[in-house]
Amino acid sequence: MMKTETNGDPRLIVAASDIDADMLYATKFWAGDPFIFLQQNGKRIIVLSDLEMDRGRRTAKVDEFASFNQLEREVQGKAKQAPPYEKVLAHFLRQRGVKSAVVPANFQLGFARALAKADIDLATTDGLFWPEREAKTDEELKLIGRALRITETGLARAIEVLKASKPAGKKLSWSGKTLTSEMLRAEIDTAMLRAGGTPTNTIVAGGDQACDPHERGSGPLPANSLIILDIFPRDAKTGYWGDMTRTVIRGRASEAQGKLWETVKEGQELALREIKDGVDGMKIHKAIQALFKKRGYPTEVRNGKNVGFFHGTGHGLGLEIHEYPRLQKVTLKDRQVVTVEPGLYYPGLGGVRHEDVVVVTKTGCKILSRFPKQLEL
Amino acid sequence: MMKTETNGDPRLIVAASDIDADMLYATKFWAGDPFIFLQQNGKRIIVLSDLEMDRGRRTAKVDEFASFNQLEREVQGKAKQAPPYEKVLAHFLRQRGVKSAVVPANFQLGFARALAKADIDLATTDGLFWPEREAKTDEELKLIGRALRITETGLARAIEVLKASKPAGKKLSWSGKTLTSEMLRAEIDTAMLRAGGTPTNTIVAGGDQACDPHERGSGPLPANSLIILDIFPRDAKTGYWGDMTRTVIRGRASEAQGKLWETVKEGQELALREIKDGVDGMKIHKAIQALFKKRGYPTEVRNGKNVGFFHGTGHGLGLEIHEYPRLQKVTLKDRQVVTVEPGLYYPGLGGVRHEDVVVVTKTGCKILSRFPKQLEL
Repeated sequence: MMKTETNGDPRLIVAASDIDADMLYATKFWAGDPFIFLQQNGKRIIVLSDLEMDRGRRTAKVDEFASFNQLEREVQGKAKQAPPYEKVLAHFLRQRGVKSAVVPANFQLGFARALAKADIDLATTDGLFWPEREAKTDEELKLIGRALRITETGLARAIEVLKASKPAGKKLSWSGKTLTSEMLRAEIDTAMLRAGGTPTNTIVAGGDQACDPHERGSGPLPANSLIILDIFPRDAKTGYWGDMTRTVIRGRASEAQGKLWETVKEGQELALREIKDGVDGMKIHKAIQALFKKRGYPTEVRNGKNVGFFHGTGHGLGLEIHEYPRLQKVTLKDRQVVTVEPGLYYPGLGGVRHEDVVVVTKTGCKILSRFPKQLEL
Repeated sequence: MMKTETNGDPRLIVAASDIDADMLYATKFWAGDPFIFLQQNGKRIIVLSDLEMDRGRRTAKVDEFASFNQLEREVQGKAKQAPPYEKVLAHFLRQRGVKSAVVPANFQLGFARALAKADIDLATTDGLFWPEREAKTDEELKLIGRALRITETGLARAIEVLKASKPAGKKLSWSGKTLTSEMLRAEIDTAMLRAGGTPTNTIVAGGDQACDPHERGSGPLPANSLIILDIFPRDAKTGYWGDMTRTVIRGRASEAQGKLWETVKEGQELALREIKDGVDGMKIHKAIQALFKKRGYPTEVRNGKNVGFFHGTGHGLGLEIHEYPRLQKVTLKDRQVVTVEPGLYYPGLGGVRHEDVVVVTKTGCKILSRFPKQLEL
């Protein structure tokens, strides 16, 4: 049953392209419900319900369209009840003479077992289902640039609101109200929506909240305190993601805050200098940790909490927000697009993260994100 | 290998709760990257990376937390490279004495094959992984109500903008500009964002665009023409979805447009009268189609395009936008929450859809959505 991938085998995906990047990559067609994609003898076929058919014909980049409703009727025959999805899937594959297929590793186990019963063998790929997704084309670099421009729109709005806010005691006040993470997030997200992005879990976290790197942030934003803005919208049109982080203070930075901020910047600059086709990402990650330690910022557990630099240096970015490769797990290759986002987190002092997006080249890397870094606003 | 589900078997999920409702339901913890959930002897354990651990401890509703990084170190030993995810997963399950587990049908095939190699048997559920998700609790009905209130905020903004717009020839004009689908969508989505919702693919489609039920709509909005507003945000806090549709005309409706709109309303009212615990959903669906045909609106293919009422009458709504059951595929049961959304689509004339959300009861149904239906604005 478990066979090795053969190049000539048909390739099969059953997934909703809204949340499955391999499907969106294969079809350029957005759909919230799962549909079937088959690539056979170089020809790409999708199976759509009546509901999706016209939109599919207009927008999907495939060679042939098959009707799910027609296939369903063929399986149903005179039965009263419509057949389960996997029976229609098996019928379609049999009709096309598919006896084995290559599927993504995230293929649904339930479907796989139903197909096994219909004597259809599936092989999963070891690495990427579409290996060509790793090296970004010029067109993709342009689309990632578009997504980063949307991200920058959000950052610009955040800075604008923070600059317009006033320290009122320990909190910030804006338009006569206490400025909260929620309010600033709504401002950022609204700006990105209008620019064509879909905002997702935008992080606006100040004080000790920022010491938890995935905490979205809530409640009043503190004055004179480090605030992390981590913004990662998806381009609603193309599906490519942007991802950038800036750390700012509205008010005055203490010496300790300033040193933390500068040290993370130094760490990021180290990475940006070292990233290049052929370089071991883990070496870069460890070099940043070593630099931080030398500057007095160790990565360790204190009172049961992780402090220091306890996340990865970066991740692949494209049709997924976190896609292959993790920077610290691979040897870097030409045309990979990765984030570079070291951070330091110490409850009491606060958190700092600087994140930019680069494309790896043969001679180094090119920074695709564009937004100044400024500590005090 | 393929075994039947046993109640006593541990239950296992490996998924990102941001996009996997069973995982969010089990943990109440939001995460964009996959993590491990195990329910064993009535105890619920999740395995989190260092990056997620503190946030998990604060917000996840589980009994125990295990460290992915610790497990990874145990597997890695003296090896230079970090082990693949599935090896850490297998190690965790072995450590816990898990020899077999029940998993959701959408469990990743790649993981399943790796676990099979480690002699861990998996059974998939036939129906729902958490059968209790079908009958909504009072608390869930409240949360779905919250999501519908967010939806209504979006609808209200749409009506406000359309009322403020002016027919200028065949198009609508607003604030001195031609009003487009994109502009109105941004207004709707912004209002919902501020109300705590995550907007997703909001449909604002006029003219023939509305004849394709999943078309989002683009370009200038037409005057005196049917415009479908189908709005389905997710409550960013709880993960429950809202889903409502209204069809309006800015300007004057022709007799034919008015009749189409009234007929769909009559179809929806038929469904709302019939829905009740124990009733066959397909009967309701067919009764609506029959009514439409009697009124002169057949469902058929014209010039290669589907016209009439060619989609389902409704779908389950909860932590997924389209969840079990499809109204027309089941016998309805007390406490199911479903949309009721008949529609009629004829290129040249336009499209109409009215969508509300109901909870099925023993004596009928209760409408959870609240927003007036008005054709002419």
